[in-house]
Amino acid sequence: MPRQLLLLNGPNLNLLGLREPERYGTTTLAEIEDMVTKAAAEHDLAVRALQSNHEGVLIDALHEARTTCAAVIINPGAFAHTSIALRDAVSAVSLPTVEVHLTNIHRREPFRHHSYIAEVADAVIAGAGPLGYVLAVTYLAQTLERA
Amino acid sequence: MPRQLLLLNGPNLNLLGLREPERYGTTTLAEIEDMVTKAAAEHDLAVRALQSNHEGVLIDALHEARTTCAAVIINPGAFAHTSIALRDAVSAVSLPTVEVHLTNIHRREPFRHHSYIAEVADAVIAGAGPLGYVLAVTYLAQTLERA
Amino acid sequence: MPRQLLLLNGPNLNLLGLREPERYGTTTLAEIEDMVTKAAAEHDLAVRALQSNHEGVLIDALHEARTTCAAVIINPGAFAHTSIALRDAVSAVSLPTVEVHLTNIHRREPFRHHSYIAEVADAVIAGAGPLGYVLAVTYLAQTLERA
Amino acid sequence: MPRQLLLLNGPNLNLLGLREPERYGTTTLAEIEDMVTKAAAEHDLAVRALQSNHEGVLIDALHEARTTCAAVIINPGAFAHTSIALRDAVSAVSLPTVEVHLTNIHRREPFRHHSYIAEVADAVIAGAGPLGYVLAVTYLAQTLERA
Amino acid sequence: MPRQLLLLNGPNLNLLGLREPERYGTTTLAEIEDMVTKAAAEHDLAVRALQSNHEGVLIDALHEARTTCAAVIINPGAFAHTSIALRDAVSAVSLPTVEVHLTNIHRREPFRHHSYIAEVADAVIAGAGPLGYVLAVTYLAQTLERA
Amino acid sequence: MPRQLLLLNGPNLNLLGLREPERYGTTTLAEIEDMVTKAAAEHDLAVRALQSNHEGVLIDALHEARTTCAAVIINPGAFAHTSIALRDAVSAVSLPTVEVHLTNIHRREPFRHHSYIAEVADAVIAGAGPLGYVLAVTYLAQTLERA
Amino acid sequence: MPRQLLLLNGPNLNLLGLREPERYGTTTLAEIEDMVTKAAAEHDLAVRALQSNHEGVLIDALHEARTTCAAVIINPGAFAHTSIALRDAVSAVSLPTVEVHLTNIHRREPFRHHSYIAEVADAVIAGAGPLGYVLAVTYLAQTLERA
Amino acid sequence: MPRQLLLLNGPNLNLLGLREPERYGTTTLAEIEDMVTKAAAEHDLAVRALQSNHEGVLIDALHEARTTCAAVIINPGAFAHTSIALRDAVSAVSLPTVEVHLTNIHRREPFRHHSYIAEVADAVIAGAGPLGYVLAVTYLAQTLERA
Amino acid sequence: MPRQLLLLNGPNLNLLGLREPERYGTTTLAEIEDMVTKAAAEHDLAVRALQSNHEGVLIDALHEARTTCAAVIINPGAFAHTSIALRDAVSAVSLPTVEVHLTNIHRREPFRHHSYIAEVADAVIAGAGPLGYVLAVTYLAQTLERA
Amino acid sequence: MPRQLLLLNGPNLNLLGLREPERYGTTTLAEIEDMVTKAAAEHDLAVRALQSNHEGVLIDALHEARTTCAAVIINPGAFAHTSIALRDAVSAVSLPTVEVHLTNIHRREPFRHHSYIAEVADAVIAGAGPLGYVLAVTYLAQTLERA
Amino acid sequence: MPRQLLLLNGPNLNLLGLREPERYGTTTLAEIEDMVTKAAAEHDLAVRALQSNHEGVLIDALHEARTTCAAVIINPGAFAHTSIALRDAVSAVSLPTVEVHLTNIHRREPFRHHSYIAEVADAVIAGAGPLGYVLAVTYLAQTLERA
Amino acid sequence: MPRQLLLLNGPNLNLLGLREPERYGTTTLAEIEDMVTKAAAEHDLAVRALQSNHEGVLIDALHEARTTCAAVIINPGAFAHTSIALRDAVSAVSLPTVEVHLTNIHRREPFRHHSYIAEVADAVIAGAGPLGYVLAVTYLAQTLERA
Repeated sequence: MPRQLLLLNGPNLNLLGLREPERYGTTTLAEIEDMVTKAAAEHDLAVRALQSNHEGVLIDALHEARTTCAAVIINPGAFAHTSIALRDAVSAVSLPTVEVHLTNIHRREPFRHHSYIAEVADAVIAGAGPLGYVLAVTYLAQTLERA
Repeated sequence: MPRQLLLLNGPNLNLLGLREPERYGTTTLAEIEDMVTKAAAEHDLAVRALQSNHEGVLIDALHEARTTCAAVIINPGAFAHTSIALRDAVSAVSLPTVEVHLTNIHRREPFRHHSYIAEVADAVIAGAGPLGYVLAVTYLAQTLERA
Repeated sequence: MPRQLLLLNGPNLNLLGLREPERYGTTTLAEIEDMVTKAAAEHDLAVRALQSNHEGVLIDALHEARTTCAAVIINPGAFAHTSIALRDAVSAVSLPTVEVHLTNIHRREPFRHHSYIAEVADAVIAGAGPLGYVLAVTYLAQTLERA
Repeated sequence: MPRQLLLLNGPNLNLLGLREPERYGTTTLAEIEDMVTKAAAEHDLAVRALQSNHEGVLIDALHEARTTCAAVIINPGAFAHTSIALRDAVSAVSLPTVEVHLTNIHRREPFRHHSYIAEVADAVIAGAGPLGYVLAVTYLAQTLERA
Repeated sequence: MPRQLLLLNGPNLNLLGLREPERYGTTTLAEIEDMVTKAAAEHDLAVRALQSNHEGVLIDALHEARTTCAAVIINPGAFAHTSIALRDAVSAVSLPTVEVHLTNIHRREPFRHHSYIAEVADAVIAGAGPLGYVLAVTYLAQTLERA
Repeated sequence: MPRQLLLLNGPNLNLLGLREPERYGTTTLAEIEDMVTKAAAEHDLAVRALQSNHEGVLIDALHEARTTCAAVIINPGAFAHTSIALRDAVSAVSLPTVEVHLTNIHRREPFRHHSYIAEVADAVIAGAGPLGYVLAVTYLAQTLERA
Repeated sequence: MPRQLLLLNGPNLNLLGLREPERYGTTTLAEIEDMVTKAAAEHDLAVRALQSNHEGVLIDALHEARTTCAAVIINPGAFAHTSIALRDAVSAVSLPTVEVHLTNIHRREPFRHHSYIAEVADAVIAGAGPLGYVLAVTYLAQTLERA
Repeated sequence: MPRQLLLLNGPNLNLLGLREPERYGTTTLAEIEDMVTKAAAEHDLAVRALQSNHEGVLIDALHEARTTCAAVIINPGAFAHTSIALRDAVSAVSLPTVEVHLTNIHRREPFRHHSYIAEVADAVIAGAGPLGYVLAVTYLAQTLERA
Repeated sequence: MPRQLLLLNGPNLNLLGLREPERYGTTTLAEIEDMVTKAAAEHDLAVRALQSNHEGVLIDALHEARTTCAAVIINPGAFAHTSIALRDAVSAVSLPTVEVHLTNIHRREPFRHHSYIAEVADAVIAGAGPLGYVLAVTYLAQTLERA
Repeated sequence: MPRQLLLLNGPNLNLLGLREPERYGTTTLAEIEDMVTKAAAEHDLAVRALQSNHEGVLIDALHEARTTCAAVIINPGAFAHTSIALRDAVSAVSLPTVEVHLTNIHRREPFRHHSYIAEVADAVIAGAGPLGYVLAVTYLAQTLERA
Repeated sequence: MPRQLLLLNGPNLNLLGLREPERYGTTTLAEIEDMVTKAAAEHDLAVRALQSNHEGVLIDALHEARTTCAAVIINPGAFAHTSIALRDAVSAVSLPTVEVHLTNIHRREPFRHHSYIAEVADAVIAGAGPLGYVLAVTYLAQTLERA
Repeated sequence: MPRQLLLLNGPNLNLLGLREPERYGTTTLAEIEDMVTKAAAEHDLAVRALQSNHEGVLIDALHEARTTCAAVIINPGAFAHTSIALRDAVSAVSLPTVEVHLTNIHRREPFRHHSYIAEVADAVIAGAGPLGYVLAVTYLAQTLERA
């Protein structure tokens, strides 16, 4: 099994730290990717990080992870609520997967309460801010050890 | 009228034969494209085949088909259920169109029962497996003969 | 296994070719039954054809097919949208079954979009006109060969 | 503040003037971009025009506009009804934004009545045809003057 | 044009005058058929009356009326709320049709408020008791005169 | 008991014969009021006719009818679908009441299918054109005779 | 009062013991009718048993029971969920009535959760298998004793 | 296996025989518990009876029954419609369970039609009054014999 | 064709500039009427302005406009969301019509998202403040020129 | 601050004491206005009372109260459930407001459960009969003292 | 009749004056109980006050009140929206009952708009703060005098 | 600030490790409380653990935590989906709160998808099994450090 995690961030997450800091905080995506990489290293895991505003690019990346990664951390952003295609990709790839949301989506607009990805992910962590990604690493590391 | 069919396959269909064989069977997409090409040849029709996980690429291909193809076979995958843009493209292109689904989508999760594409396609074939594509060729060949 | 197909047509389909030709075409039911018989003969299959406006008659026919037929082609007409009893009969009989609709029901009134039969049929073909029945024969012949 | 407007047109709008002229008129997208450019010039504003059938491309363009444009005119086409990601991009970019639809979407299919973009745009103009874009320029010019 | 009306009464209406007189009154179905026959005779119209608890029988009667009757008075009883097949038959037969209900269905259980037949009938008369049938004759006589 | 009928017509019915003749016919409201007056005279009943686009005026007229009229014919127009206040007035006045619609409201937009007035009227006649008012007179005359 | 029970079984129940034994068990309908007859005999009650796949036949039987039976046991099968006509017949006949379902319909597909018959029956027994019919006899015998 | 039944009655059932006798009859809860005890004794089964208005007490009793009882008769009262926690307890305890309602809940307010308990119980008996509990004993005795 | 515009403002708009300035701004209705009159004069059009809190008065004004005005600008205020009668009046009058809302109704309470008027108006402008009325003049002037 | 209360009663409340006394009691509106006037006088407050069946008249009265009254008691009658315009008027006027209903609207038809006025009123009193108006005076007097 | 009122307060109301004072004010529950006791004393009524976070305790208290109290004031807190068991208890106890809410629940989250208790209480007072309890005493005192 | 965490577990969680191990695993609640205590000790935090099947007990514990704890970890079990009272308690207590679910509730029955607690918690962790509690400790420790 490849000892690499796919860290996938969806649309608009490249603006982290720049837009609406009162909601999303001041941490940038680069800093988050750094935190994840360090946390993963403690478990002897590498990280392949990708952000894209293109649904197709995210799907392609998941397909590629089938043979190159051991697990997936995905913050699908707004695609969580609309993309059955992304859901199908997560499901088809069949790797341990954690869905992360920086904010607690259950406290926001009703159209953000439902996630297609949550229906196929193993675990969901929402509202824990950037730390949520690190908690996901902890969970996946434990899962991989047991597998 | 150009004697060419556009064969369009949407997201995750590149994984055919690889993922969930108990649901989708073991036939690969390449084999399906081959079957369609042979079936079309019997009616003196060429086939232009394209698969993409990118909604925009599928729309571009439909636009291009307006002047280069005589009819369309489309398996929109999960986009069937979410993409009004793809629906508008099918509608704008105004070619005879058959929507094909490998599985009977009416026996799966409720969110797969409705298809935006079905509302603008001429015919829909679901659940006939890879043979469904071939049946679509038969239908379109007859339609083109009559036009 | 008996080499006979049950061809079942539901309410109002006896008026085919007589009513609303701009919607249903000019082919009569007798002509369709003839087409199906010929197509089936090519696969060495006989056809038992029945049309009825009585739900109970259709159910009785399905029950009888359990031991006398190898597969079913059913155009349930309006019963598709209202008859759970017919659905249960199709399900209880457990033969390979294709649901056929002459028109693309997804382009019509919302109450025609859902079919109880589709939830238990193997495949669904809608909008291909009379040819749809012939495509159903092709599909069932292949299915029977493989069984 | 940069004196440039972003003029963004979504999926299928590249076919303007070519498809369904009885619904969308005979004006092409190039002609509309020309009209907008001239109207903007009267207010000393430049125009950066982009059309794409790719959701991600539209989002990327909005992100880039954060630092290069003063306001946005967007006709999201069908994405208006499905893309929360595009909505988030408009919201994150935080520029004065007008949503334009050529047709009056409230007179069309129910699934076109709701727009995610309208929930974050400043103003919405629907049904005024190509002139709607020019009215948007007038509005944004006034808004920018007052800011 | 045949000068004959079809008077069709659906399920349970054979019990008229026998069951729940406080709701349906004491007039029997035979008396109603008599009233309709007399009223029709004043307009030189014959009446063919049929009551059945069998949906298929009602559909068959409508089909037969295509060539033998000039107009239809139908009290579909409970089938009004459930039978798309009956609706299709009324629609296919294409004769001037009045739907009659003895009681005002809008004052009863919610599932009686909607009638599939009303969507294809020319006129609807509800709550006028047995007189409603006679009013239907008056309406149809006028319609036939004008045709 | 006063031998007078209240004939009440709601909003936009003053335009009858002027607007949308393909839907509402060419008969004017004055002609309808004349027809009703003549029909009522045959039963020795006078008619008090009123049309208003003002909900309050219609309610006031109903209140006044409590002591001056024996029965009510009301075509509430669009108020049928929105006015609980008018419904309450019909209910409070407690006179025999027939609701008349020129067109069959069940064949039009969904928001016209439900009528608050129908929930409290004795009978409903829809789709019979101007004749519907005359049928209402017949019904009310019979009801008054029996009372 | 006639000392006879009507035992009515609806569509597809003739297949009991033959189809889906893991769901419906191996007891045949004949065996159930036998069990009911014996249980009724203990209370000095005869049984008139009828099974039909025809809604109209079931309604006719209920009508006939008005004068020939003292109570009704009905397993309406799928008609429970769709037949308002059958509901009206049960209601019009006004005999003590128990609705029986072999399986617990609340654990099956959502469209089986609601029963029109349950809204007019006195008692409902679901999920007790063939024994449910016998429990219904016990209940009706007690009810008849008290009447 | 312990030969003891748990007889659980939920909120307000302690008022039986005292409140609304026209709905719930005059039998008291003590009398019902007596009836059940006698009926169970015929099958050599003891009864542990408990009534509580406290959801937690009912859940605790179910937990305790896991090791001390062989089956459960539960009338959850209003908790049937609101308590997922009680449902989970029934499910977790995994004993043969019959849900009993004195009245036919399907004839009452809509919010009483659905029962969370019914989704996990083996059988449901509603509307048979106090006898319903006795029928439940009969059913459970048979089930235990067969196990 | 009369060169006059009807400018119609609905309930509570007489309070403009007085109430909730943070939402509706400080411009008064008189100032808006002045702006519209000036903008119309540039196109050689007169303006007839009316504000009313009475639905009937607005309907009467529309009826009168049929013969005295060439086009309509209407801000129906809250009646947009509730008045089918006003919708019917706009529809019956059949003049080019623009619906204007000062605020972007799609960003407010859900019950303000739907407008009955929008379903029959030619164009809708929302959120552009008082300028919205002027943009409506521009649009109507162009429309009238082309007619 | 003017020491005057506006007492506003909506449609059909002029019939109080005359219609449906079993529901609304025998107290007339004049008696209620008298009770309110006396109760207000105890707090040194005058009362301006108005009843109207015309929505616009009620709105006008609220507008006028902005400068002439200190608080509002409003029984909107049926307009509570349909009038967003009245809601906007209450909201725009920004005076302490109590909504009063004679009957407990939550025990009546579902369409009476929701009140647009309740969403902007300070307090709601329903079901206390005529006394409800007096309780409203007590509440408003206390509120005004504290302001 | 016992001259005692039951004053029942539901979950979290023990925190009154401590939590969210901007919403619930600074008055403590003890102060409210004191106010109610004094107000009741003026009518020669004693008060039995109870607060509990336990649904079962509240139900038990209502049951006990059947024989010891003359009327009930209940602020069910959040149980208003979820507890059918509490509703049944109020209904079974059959005493004059007023439901009080400190805040206007119609201005809060949608899930607080509906109250099961309101469907069985005599009157409802919401949004009048602590005074609401005192108004309830006034109402109940009047009701008891008249009984 | 007290350095103590409240660890609250709701209904049926006392059965952990005993029931449905294929869903909930074999770890017992005692083991989980042990894990949490150890993890908290690393951050110098004590743990107060409580499990109850009684909603009121959980609410009481939250109230008490206001002054004795610094943060809350709550697995509300089934109460997540039904208890507004528990939600109000979490909200009133105003401590940093993490909601934990052992399973991914978004992959289970629809009625488990919505959580009232999630609407007021800071973060939600679902599907991570017993480890989810430990991740919650990590998150809360970080939050407390920053406060």
